[in-house]
Amino acid sequence: MEQLTACLARLPGVGRRSAERMAVKLVRDPDGLLKDVADALEQARGTIRCCSCCGSVTHVGADPCRLCTSPSRDDTVLCVVEDPNDIALIERCGEFRGRYHALMGRLSPMRGEGPANLRLQGLRQRLKDGHFEEVLLALATDVEGDSTASMIREYLADSGVRITRIAYGLPAGSGIGYSDPVTLGRSIKGRQEV
Amino acid sequence: MEQLTACLARLPGVGRRSAERMAVKLVRDPDGLLKDVADALEQARGTIRCCSCCGSVTHVGADPCRLCTSPSRDDTVLCVVEDPNDIALIERCGEFRGRYHALMGRLSPMRGEGPANLRLQGLRQRLKDGHFEEVLLALATDVEGDSTASMIREYLADSGVRITRIAYGLPAGSGIGYSDPVTLGRSIKGRQEV
Repeated sequence: MEQLTACLARLPGVGRRSAERMAVKLVRDPDGLLKDVADALEQARGTIRCCSCCGSVTHVGADPCRLCTSPSRDDTVLCVVEDPNDIALIERCGEFRGRYHALMGRLSPMRGEGPANLRLQGLRQRLKDGHFEEVLLALATDVEGDSTASMIREYLADSGVRITRIAYGLPAGSGIGYSDPVTLGRSIKGRQEV
Repeated sequence: MEQLTACLARLPGVGRRSAERMAVKLVRDPDGLLKDVADALEQARGTIRCCSCCGSVTHVGADPCRLCTSPSRDDTVLCVVEDPNDIALIERCGEFRGRYHALMGRLSPMRGEGPANLRLQGLRQRLKDGHFEEVLLALATDVEGDSTASMIREYLADSGVRITRIAYGLPAGSGIGYSDPVTLGRSIKGRQEV
């Protein structure tokens, strides 16, 4: 029981107390929830994987993934995201046709995550091997996202590619009166010709 | 009572039913709330006004307002907003040092508001009389804001000034996972060099 709890507590967003509650719930019903979760994990282990190139979620038999191998995508722009989930979100909005690279995290001194935890060497290697002209940073717009962006800009300073970042601004369907001063200020700084 | 209710119903955001409730509340206490509101209105009438130049809220004795007369502001950029309130919000974020022009509304076919309801002639006159090189549209990022922006772009097409618009994008302190596809798509389109 102790081992199960400690293991569950390693999941993101799960604290010691939640892990204990989960463990109790699981062992109370060994042929129900516990079996279902165990089966789902076993099945995932055999079929799902993160692409060894970009990091997105893919099938075991499809590594590199279809986003990395598709011939119809733009090989000059590389979009850097924090998590594999972000790739799916950007695909859904349909505005990006280049390649991806998931860092698998971001700089977070509070949680003890530094550059060594991120897939940075793979990023540099891809820039060296490929024909990328632009690295588009699609990171969060908070303090950790900002510091991750600065770090990558310095890390890639000698790579010769343009480094861009997705825009700060007012979300679609919003008004001046609903935005905070920082967002409003940045949307003025980042104004664009119409 | 009928006249009071009809009058209150003309306030923005107040429907017939709300106006009736307000009217009853007011007349039940003629020396309390009713007197206070009447006094406040009377005092406002004698002291507060919208600047005849930019439309921002100012004192009766200060028209044009200090934003229009201050010698330390940038005379080459004119920021177009919907309401006088928006001017105060933009001033608070501290990123803009030019002049302002409030339209006093926006295109809203649903509410029967067309170009004739907006301060457009004053806008054109100011561009003719002044030395503006850029008109920055700080309008809402919804359908009505978009159509107001298009209309102004066409209206000012022959004026020779650059027309810009504040950026769409992720609000500060947000992440990819919290944004809708339209906002995310526009923040990718509007990406900027870092």
